[in-house]
Amino acid sequence: MGVIMRLRRKPEAADFLNAHPEYVISVTEENKPVMSEQFAKNQPLHIEIGMGKGDFIIGMAKKYPNINFIGIEKYDSVLYVALKKVLEEEYISNLRLLRADAIHLKEMFKAGEVEKIYLNFSDPWPKSRHYKRRLTYKDYLDIYHYVLVEHGVIEQKTDNRTLFEFSLMSLHQYPMHFDRICLDLHHSEFFEDNVMTEYERKFSPNGPIYQLIAHF
Amino acid sequence: MGVIMRLRRKPEAADFLNAHPEYVISVTEENKPVMSEQFAKNQPLHIEIGMGKGDFIIGMAKKYPNINFIGIEKYDSVLYVALKKVLEEEYISNLRLLRADAIHLKEMFKAGEVEKIYLNFSDPWPKSRHYKRRLTYKDYLDIYHYVLVEHGVIEQKTDNRTLFEFSLMSLHQYPMHFDRICLDLHHSEFFEDNVMTEYERKFSPNGPIYQLIAHF
Repeated sequence: MGVIMRLRRKPEAADFLNAHPEYVISVTEENKPVMSEQFAKNQPLHIEIGMGKGDFIIGMAKKYPNINFIGIEKYDSVLYVALKKVLEEEYISNLRLLRADAIHLKEMFKAGEVEKIYLNFSDPWPKSRHYKRRLTYKDYLDIYHYVLVEHGVIEQKTDNRTLFEFSLMSLHQYPMHFDRICLDLHHSEFFEDNVMTEYERKFSPNGPIYQLIAHF
Repeated sequence: MGVIMRLRRKPEAADFLNAHPEYVISVTEENKPVMSEQFAKNQPLHIEIGMGKGDFIIGMAKKYPNINFIGIEKYDSVLYVALKKVLEEEYISNLRLLRADAIHLKEMFKAGEVEKIYLNFSDPWPKSRHYKRRLTYKDYLDIYHYVLVEHGVIEQKTDNRTLFEFSLMSLHQYPMHFDRICLDLHHSEFFEDNVMTEYERKFSPNGPIYQLIAHF
């Protein structure tokens, strides 16, 4: 969260984002583009909710050119940092960035438009009275269920024990179906295929990274 | 497993067990006693499958006098060690010991006779080809389902990541219903009520103790 606090008031951020329509999808009251049509190729669409500085979604887009990716962030100031990183790369035609709050995804995506949603190191909202704000709370699962294809997939990574316990319970009760539960990703058979976030790179030495993969 | 290897061939074990019918329930082809009737008081019955040296079931029986407990072990030699420990205590009228293999529980208990089953630090059978031997494999869940009351409960503790991941998946798929998933019991709000096994006392400093509580 340090990033957000530091960057929230960066006046040039909005202008910079507007100046890069080749990456940043612009959504206004008057103009609501179809997300899956923002790409050169018509191929499956994966989105990351809360992409932070963008290491994960950039890495994924480069690794999987046959999938379209949208990195989503709530704050202009964070999107700005991610965009700067993307611009350091050669043009990545299967990657777009979008400023949005997860709570509004149904207004931005059509039903069944997304094949997979990534939730990486989401805000844990550790106080139990704030559990409804956690991105795996059932109200959010309803939203994901809507924008995802039938049997669409959610992949979550976190180092926060409370958030992961909450997610397991919440997805189980929804009910979703677990495809993978891994309690120490970096010391598991799945580590080889793992694309790291910037947060993960920094904090994984401090304790286990938890991962779950589940589908509706 | 060290205990088993060391103690398997203790010739006096069987005689010693037979000499203590006040604790050890004797089951033969000719004599199959009703487990829930082996107690002074008619009250809910909890069983531990694989009680090891018995610290947990002895601690639970002393802590919860309004519940009847049966500690179950596969090997005479291990039961022998547990019995010696029990005999160091004042007589515990709500505790019995039983030599049995989990695979045969349906022959030993009536349907719906048990309210709760504890699985503490069960053999993880870490090789993936041995997964059917893990005590949370679906064939075992079928057995537990039979001997448990409606909505009967399973509580599992382990420090083995692979076993815990497997248990979460297996119980989820059965499907059972999770009441608690705790990924670090000793640093959680639930630690206060925790009764430790001898294994747990020794190995918990090495890493997290996982716990799940689930019901049918």
